[in-house]
Amino acid sequence: MSTAERLIESTRDLLWERGYVGTSPKAILERAGAGQGSMYHHFTGKPDLALAAIRRTAEELRAAADAVLDGPGTPYDRIAAYLRRERDVLRGCPVGRLTMDPDVIASDTLRAPVEETITWLRGRIAAVVDEGRRLGQFPAESDPDELAATVVATVQGGYVLARASGSPDAFDAGVRGLLALLAPRTPAAPATD
Amino acid sequence: MSTAERLIESTRDLLWERGYVGTSPKAILERAGAGQGSMYHHFTGKPDLALAAIRRTAEELRAAADAVLDGPGTPYDRIAAYLRRERDVLRGCPVGRLTMDPDVIASDTLRAPVEETITWLRGRIAAVVDEGRRLGQFPAESDPDELAATVVATVQGGYVLARASGSPDAFDAGVRGLLALLAPRTPAAPATD
Repeated sequence: MSTAERLIESTRDLLWERGYVGTSPKAILERAGAGQGSMYHHFTGKPDLALAAIRRTAEELRAAADAVLDGPGTPYDRIAAYLRRERDVLRGCPVGRLTMDPDVIASDTLRAPVEETITWLRGRIAAVVDEGRRLGQFPAESDPDELAATVVATVQGGYVLARASGSPDAFDAGVRGLLALLAPRTPAAPATD
Repeated sequence: MSTAERLIESTRDLLWERGYVGTSPKAILERAGAGQGSMYHHFTGKPDLALAAIRRTAEELRAAADAVLDGPGTPYDRIAAYLRRERDVLRGCPVGRLTMDPDVIASDTLRAPVEETITWLRGRIAAVVDEGRRLGQFPAESDPDELAATVVATVQGGYVLARASGSPDAFDAGVRGLLALLAPRTPAAPATD
């Protein structure tokens, strides 16, 4: 692996583990086994290196989402596959967690790939929901864009629940709760009052 | 306000804005207008002060949740009020965001009040869902604990969507999507294939 590659991969790891604020240029250089000179040869500094790292992480997230959303099955099955796809739940989302990083959010340049990825994901899921609704799947009352926001929020918030409790079970519970709501169903029992 | 109070309040603000990793003892002292001696007079150090700050923030979050979940209306209305309660969406959740802070999650002491608060909230919402199901509200297929996890995850993930896009609209979209799923409904149209 070239030095530039090692620097990007080390930055990706550290952003996921420690966040942008918690990652020093020194820590990146140590993990990459690189010197300061080589970092400045390839990148203008920590923000430039972080941008390359975030872009690559975002690409991987898109590819992983595409793999399940373009996969086999009905629209409901594909949304379910997205919600259930294997994740390193206790590490959190490598893209979503950056939204809690004040220096990422304060920088239009660093926030851009985060915003683009989340917007892309919401649109991708909304299209699958829309396809499902034309087949009679998903509740007729729901708006595809809003339902897509709920799906993405459940995943992102599921990481919060899991990390709070130190167990992936909480993530899975949130996903199962949403899948039960999305599934075709029998009408609710009448109210007793 | 006493110096100890000013230190706690400044730490709360900084934890919300910058996170634990991003908050230095120096920044706390500057914001509180206090000297290092007075910090060590009242607290053993940054972790001790952060614990006091997190506990107070957690108490406020519980009181705010109780206010809506014990409020007027049916169980559905109260869950809706919880989801729609006024929030400083772009700042994120002052408790939930701590789960993305590696030094909070790595410390059993600092994680404890975060875990307790989220667990308490899930239990509180599960009880309201359970009450609603006995009245014929909420889909009969759903498990109250799982549905509560979905409700809390939608809120926590809604902050991620909002901060990614720089607008509270994404939070609101996720909430509306979930409310449409939770609402009493007519059966879905039959599948066309």
